[in-house]
Amino acid sequence: MAWDFSTEPEFEKQLQWMREFVRDEIYPLEVLEADDGSFMRIVRTLQKEVKERKLWATHLPPELGGQGFGQVKLGLIHEILGASVWAPTVFGNQAPDSGNSEILANFGTSRQKELWLHPLLEGKLRSGFSMTEPHNAGSDPVDLSTTAELRGDEWVINGHKWFTSNGMIADFLIVMAATEPDAGPYERASMIIVPTDTPGLKRLRNIPTMAGEHERFGYGHAEILYEDVRVPKENLLGERGKGFLIAQHRLGPGRIHHCMRWLGQARRAFDMLCERALQRRAFGGPLADKQTVQNWIADSAAEMQAARLMTLHAAWVIDREGAPAARKEISLIKFFGARVLHDVIDRALQLHGSLGYSSDLPLEEMYRHARAARMYDGPDEVHRQSVARYILRDYKAPKGPWPREHVPTRREAARRKFAAMLETMTADV
Amino acid sequence: MAWDFSTEPEFEKQLQWMREFVRDEIYPLEVLEADDGSFMRIVRTLQKEVKERKLWATHLPPELGGQGFGQVKLGLIHEILGASVWAPTVFGNQAPDSGNSEILANFGTSRQKELWLHPLLEGKLRSGFSMTEPHNAGSDPVDLSTTAELRGDEWVINGHKWFTSNGMIADFLIVMAATEPDAGPYERASMIIVPTDTPGLKRLRNIPTMAGEHERFGYGHAEILYEDVRVPKENLLGERGKGFLIAQHRLGPGRIHHCMRWLGQARRAFDMLCERALQRRAFGGPLADKQTVQNWIADSAAEMQAARLMTLHAAWVIDREGAPAARKEISLIKFFGARVLHDVIDRALQLHGSLGYSSDLPLEEMYRHARAARMYDGPDEVHRQSVARYILRDYKAPKGPWPREHVPTRREAARRKFAAMLETMTADV
Amino acid sequence: MAWDFSTEPEFEKQLQWMREFVRDEIYPLEVLEADDGSFMRIVRTLQKEVKERKLWATHLPPELGGQGFGQVKLGLIHEILGASVWAPTVFGNQAPDSGNSEILANFGTSRQKELWLHPLLEGKLRSGFSMTEPHNAGSDPVDLSTTAELRGDEWVINGHKWFTSNGMIADFLIVMAATEPDAGPYERASMIIVPTDTPGLKRLRNIPTMAGEHERFGYGHAEILYEDVRVPKENLLGERGKGFLIAQHRLGPGRIHHCMRWLGQARRAFDMLCERALQRRAFGGPLADKQTVQNWIADSAAEMQAARLMTLHAAWVIDREGAPAARKEISLIKFFGARVLHDVIDRALQLHGSLGYSSDLPLEEMYRHARAARMYDGPDEVHRQSVARYILRDYKAPKGPWPREHVPTRREAARRKFAAMLETMTADV
Amino acid sequence: MAWDFSTEPEFEKQLQWMREFVRDEIYPLEVLEADDGSFMRIVRTLQKEVKERKLWATHLPPELGGQGFGQVKLGLIHEILGASVWAPTVFGNQAPDSGNSEILANFGTSRQKELWLHPLLEGKLRSGFSMTEPHNAGSDPVDLSTTAELRGDEWVINGHKWFTSNGMIADFLIVMAATEPDAGPYERASMIIVPTDTPGLKRLRNIPTMAGEHERFGYGHAEILYEDVRVPKENLLGERGKGFLIAQHRLGPGRIHHCMRWLGQARRAFDMLCERALQRRAFGGPLADKQTVQNWIADSAAEMQAARLMTLHAAWVIDREGAPAARKEISLIKFFGARVLHDVIDRALQLHGSLGYSSDLPLEEMYRHARAARMYDGPDEVHRQSVARYILRDYKAPKGPWPREHVPTRREAARRKFAAMLETMTADV
Repeated sequence: MAWDFSTEPEFEKQLQWMREFVRDEIYPLEVLEADDGSFMRIVRTLQKEVKERKLWATHLPPELGGQGFGQVKLGLIHEILGASVWAPTVFGNQAPDSGNSEILANFGTSRQKELWLHPLLEGKLRSGFSMTEPHNAGSDPVDLSTTAELRGDEWVINGHKWFTSNGMIADFLIVMAATEPDAGPYERASMIIVPTDTPGLKRLRNIPTMAGEHERFGYGHAEILYEDVRVPKENLLGERGKGFLIAQHRLGPGRIHHCMRWLGQARRAFDMLCERALQRRAFGGPLADKQTVQNWIADSAAEMQAARLMTLHAAWVIDREGAPAARKEISLIKFFGARVLHDVIDRALQLHGSLGYSSDLPLEEMYRHARAARMYDGPDEVHRQSVARYILRDYKAPKGPWPREHVPTRREAARRKFAAMLETMTADV
Repeated sequence: MAWDFSTEPEFEKQLQWMREFVRDEIYPLEVLEADDGSFMRIVRTLQKEVKERKLWATHLPPELGGQGFGQVKLGLIHEILGASVWAPTVFGNQAPDSGNSEILANFGTSRQKELWLHPLLEGKLRSGFSMTEPHNAGSDPVDLSTTAELRGDEWVINGHKWFTSNGMIADFLIVMAATEPDAGPYERASMIIVPTDTPGLKRLRNIPTMAGEHERFGYGHAEILYEDVRVPKENLLGERGKGFLIAQHRLGPGRIHHCMRWLGQARRAFDMLCERALQRRAFGGPLADKQTVQNWIADSAAEMQAARLMTLHAAWVIDREGAPAARKEISLIKFFGARVLHDVIDRALQLHGSLGYSSDLPLEEMYRHARAARMYDGPDEVHRQSVARYILRDYKAPKGPWPREHVPTRREAARRKFAAMLETMTADV
Repeated sequence: MAWDFSTEPEFEKQLQWMREFVRDEIYPLEVLEADDGSFMRIVRTLQKEVKERKLWATHLPPELGGQGFGQVKLGLIHEILGASVWAPTVFGNQAPDSGNSEILANFGTSRQKELWLHPLLEGKLRSGFSMTEPHNAGSDPVDLSTTAELRGDEWVINGHKWFTSNGMIADFLIVMAATEPDAGPYERASMIIVPTDTPGLKRLRNIPTMAGEHERFGYGHAEILYEDVRVPKENLLGERGKGFLIAQHRLGPGRIHHCMRWLGQARRAFDMLCERALQRRAFGGPLADKQTVQNWIADSAAEMQAARLMTLHAAWVIDREGAPAARKEISLIKFFGARVLHDVIDRALQLHGSLGYSSDLPLEEMYRHARAARMYDGPDEVHRQSVARYILRDYKAPKGPWPREHVPTRREAARRKFAAMLETMTADV
Repeated sequence: MAWDFSTEPEFEKQLQWMREFVRDEIYPLEVLEADDGSFMRIVRTLQKEVKERKLWATHLPPELGGQGFGQVKLGLIHEILGASVWAPTVFGNQAPDSGNSEILANFGTSRQKELWLHPLLEGKLRSGFSMTEPHNAGSDPVDLSTTAELRGDEWVINGHKWFTSNGMIADFLIVMAATEPDAGPYERASMIIVPTDTPGLKRLRNIPTMAGEHERFGYGHAEILYEDVRVPKENLLGERGKGFLIAQHRLGPGRIHHCMRWLGQARRAFDMLCERALQRRAFGGPLADKQTVQNWIADSAAEMQAARLMTLHAAWVIDREGAPAARKEISLIKFFGARVLHDVIDRALQLHGSLGYSSDLPLEEMYRHARAARMYDGPDEVHRQSVARYILRDYKAPKGPWPREHVPTRREAARRKFAAMLETMTADV
């Protein structure tokens, strides 16, 4: 049957389990004050449960332990995981390891898989992704200035990167560098695997941001210099000049997951909004009785519902026709979803007043993180432009100076069209 | 299979036929200058084709000629019909006759069906719906002041109505009147069938509105006085005191149809926006190259997609659980959809400049009609309030003064929760 | 004294008289059903009072009867006149005659003044302004395609215009035509006076628009063909190639007047919003008690106050430094004011529900007229672009790759700056 | 002369000096890494310059060293100070000391001035303001639950406060407590001076917030318990039951200063927006050429201009008629200005991309601070409500069921009004 918004009962049971598990076991991690070692052992205990439940690293292909879920199901999973910053770690799909393992699984040689993918999945290595550059607009591929030159059997890499995820703690980085500087804008770059202990690779610092220190234990986004960094020829990941294509592959479904995680965040803020509206009183009644608050609840509900259906629809297009077919849909949810995420959190925060502004509630951190959503994976402005271009391809300008719907022209055509019919009819009477 | 956004192939063929039929045969009607008689005969010719195609009055139950389509399919049909003001007439579901026939079919006695429903379906009678009152807020049922008193075998009706659809041309009206003035707010009113030639019923005028004269040939919304209007006891439609319940029944799926028709309107405006953006040049290039225009296209696409999926989702809930279960969803799309309708038309109009403002294009009329969408079927403000109330029913205030997510409280609980585990672990090392 | 928001007492008395006169004598004109002749005689009676009060045609230079008011005072006058569609006619500054008389007064030869200006001011002739073309974007001067060629002693004009104000009733038109087709974009056009009975000038029709029929008695915006229209060489108004410069002169202060008139409209809608909020009850209290309505009132008040102060500030800049110096300010209020006008009327209309949508109130007409404000005198999009350009002229890009506020760079500089000071101090302790 | 937007030349020179001083001497303080002692000595050196310039503590009455500037001039000063977080400290008007010294100056006894005000102004004591309570909505005075009971010669204070400014470092606090629990809502509270070393006063912590650690050296907002805290009867500040009245006095002009400081912040972000738009290139040109960026610049310019004029207007009303007369104006700018502040910073941040999100620029901190502006000094929602109430006092509901502008009623009146005139006229012809 067509047009069905339901979830398969068997899978819904898994989701239900996840919801409870995230709430009961992972939420407490968020506020636990423990040292790195203790913390990670608790995490590993929880990861074991997830593996037993067959929900570990579900984004991977079946041969690597995934369940063959399509993007719709992965989306529904990520909606639940998005509610807590630690849930992806516990479920084996935290960024950037999840995306990196996907690339390695799909484009890596068997030797690369052996050296990097398997240890990564076993938690023995940590990875980072090194693409953004401080002096170039990330959304314009022409501007990539880090280079990798093949000299003999080695790639020699030079460049300046920042916002390299996990940069200070990763064991290896996947680096985007121009290997074919004279090719077309989308064929200039390749991906290369670079161990972080390679000479010439300088980890300058974790860049302080609005996100603050939530990435405990060294996580963060680093600034890194590559000065004549040399790695073996075999560290090329995928084909030469296919760097952006692979990145696109990495980002497509990844954006679905992002958007669904945003919904998990938004839902959590929304729950707080509703509960506090019932709890807090001012001027003779609960805040829930104030029409402004009711408007916030109604608008938030509408916008979350909109973003949710649009994201699952985009996932469904990927499942049916592949990620490239869904580019318009993915761009749509990118900017629409980022706005919803912000607005719902913003309203929840405002309702809580100074308490909401304080770190005694998670809202202020959610608010700071939400601000980044309008930038990463491409700024909203670029996605809007892309959407317009995809759409305009299906239109063409009407001939002549007037729009197709020009009434005087249409009137003349209608007169001609019905003339005979009207004549017969008049005769009829 | 769950989460499916596709349309059944067989039904899709019908939709495809409708799209072409509406564009090729009905669009010309919009601008045809013909007298009432000629015009209606062309319409009847087209209606015949629709009946042969088995797409006539699809909202009716099968025994009256409907096809047993659920609301999702009806929604997809109305999306196509919404593009043209004459399409509902050609497809047998123009307001208010469609809603009135639904009520008569569902709540009428067999005698009432014989007297009113069948002639209505055959096009021998025309009907109107008389609920709104000039001096009372329509959204508050307590304020209904028209009364119907049972004296002997007759209802004696007194009151002042306006915005009675088709009031000046209808043969009979369905009138909402307080028959149990002392009952609870939603049990005060009943529906009564009143022939328009009954003594005491005074049709004052068609009320001029922003919508202008599009309702050619006498259609419109009338102001009507009821002064000791007497009709037989049997003209009660449904049970006493059930007026609002029946109205709700009338309005529930009706709102789905409205919202989908709005999308048909919005889509038509959007097509004009895109085509004109490619056609019109200024400052050295087509308007399609200006980023502001690209933003309009992208935002419109996102909002239409959002409204569409939300509306079909609401339809799906009705099909699965009945209209009362979908009240929240219906209210959501009411205010969300009305906004989208306006905004898309507004952008298309702005892009067309003074041409868009002129009646040489249909946009200015669409803009005027769109303005009403935020009011009819209940103003957006009331729907927002309803949504908030439905949602808040599922929440309760946390006990104590703090929100559930209060970090200090949660931290204490997390410490306790993991204490034993951490102890064992420390021992472990 | 500086920063003074008060109005001079003497002038305030004049304004107060105007407020009462407009309300008591001109508002009734709006709804008076009288034939053209009777109506105009009432108007002339009122005009006489205005002239006695020395408030007639105040925009003109003193030698033509103006009072030498600057733009601030004219602004305050237009704010009052804006409340009623007939007030400008009664006060001698209705478009397009007011702008045309200004051009003639400032740029006309004495012969032109004698032939056209004086009869215009005496009400013996009516004028129109013919600039917009159906197939060209009005905001881009390169696109002007109507030409005027000097052949012997005559200008021969060919072109297609529309939205020519008063086109069907005017005695003469001021036509914008390219006389120097190869000059730079802003030097291509000249203004030429064309009597409407000149052979070859074809008045096709008044263009129907969303504004509807408010322009009673034949006013409106016409579509006009110029086919080898010949007028004497002396009909050139101002210098050759200065058409856009003169138009700019015409539009500069004109936009101030527009914006202030919008505020008069907005204020009238706002008064209706507030009064109705107190009058109408629903769900147990007046609408004024609903927080949504309170938000509408507060936001409207803030936005009207903002637009008002910004417009008077722009007027003040013109008075101090001339219209060219105020181009940024004028563009700012154009798009800001048009939005305020719409939003305030929109809220007032929504509050009145179906009554607001009906023509029983003036709101629906105000709403339709307000929609045009985002287009005429240049679409908002073009004004936004102009503002950005004016502003960016005062900035320059920092040298090097980093913004001036780059913290690491600044930190280094601060360290150096205070080093000596800190050293001394440490020694101090 | 009336309607004057200029600044007096003499005073403008002072402002110009301030602009340069803030940019050259105070901006570097923001990023200086120095210990508390060194830092404060640099500050004191700068303060000395300010005092010599006669710009120290300008909010105070002349007898305490102020210059007798009115609110307009103070506003223009605060606009400049707002650009840097350290400028108020250098100019002697940092919160909360500035507000506290004002209260003491206006309402303190001579003994209180001697004990608290003079040492405060000399920098020998630090003060805090203790009003907000964790379990009560701050905007509703009925909810204040901290009590002060007069027992013998002592006030005994019990309660729980938070967001007490400077709470952890202040030498004394001004505490708002209910001394007349049964009085009307605005007469329940009094202000009492409480030294922080009084037994029973427990400073729990500085509350962590989104604002982060910018308040270096211990500044912040503290949570404080008052358990049987006893202070002498003479510590009552002002009269019993006048606590809210005094707070209002403190907040009125204070909001002007806030709003003007917000403009200083917004202007700084706007400068960054414009400079970066010219500096950064993507897709073949500077960002300044993208229409979206131009829209941001134009809208920001309009909104800042609006907020600025409205705030100076409110200041002017205070100067003319006193703070109570300006309550509507002050509430207007509170919510309007807070929105502008956020929006301008938000756009600047978005334009800078990941750099803007990082702490390498001041934008992310400005963004976090701006979020608080919608809450402190009363949440925007409460100010909107107040504005609506002030405005509605000047209106009354029209009699009868129809609005005053009801066209049918007006038409009848107009007919009557002009009847005689029309009759004469017709006779005339």
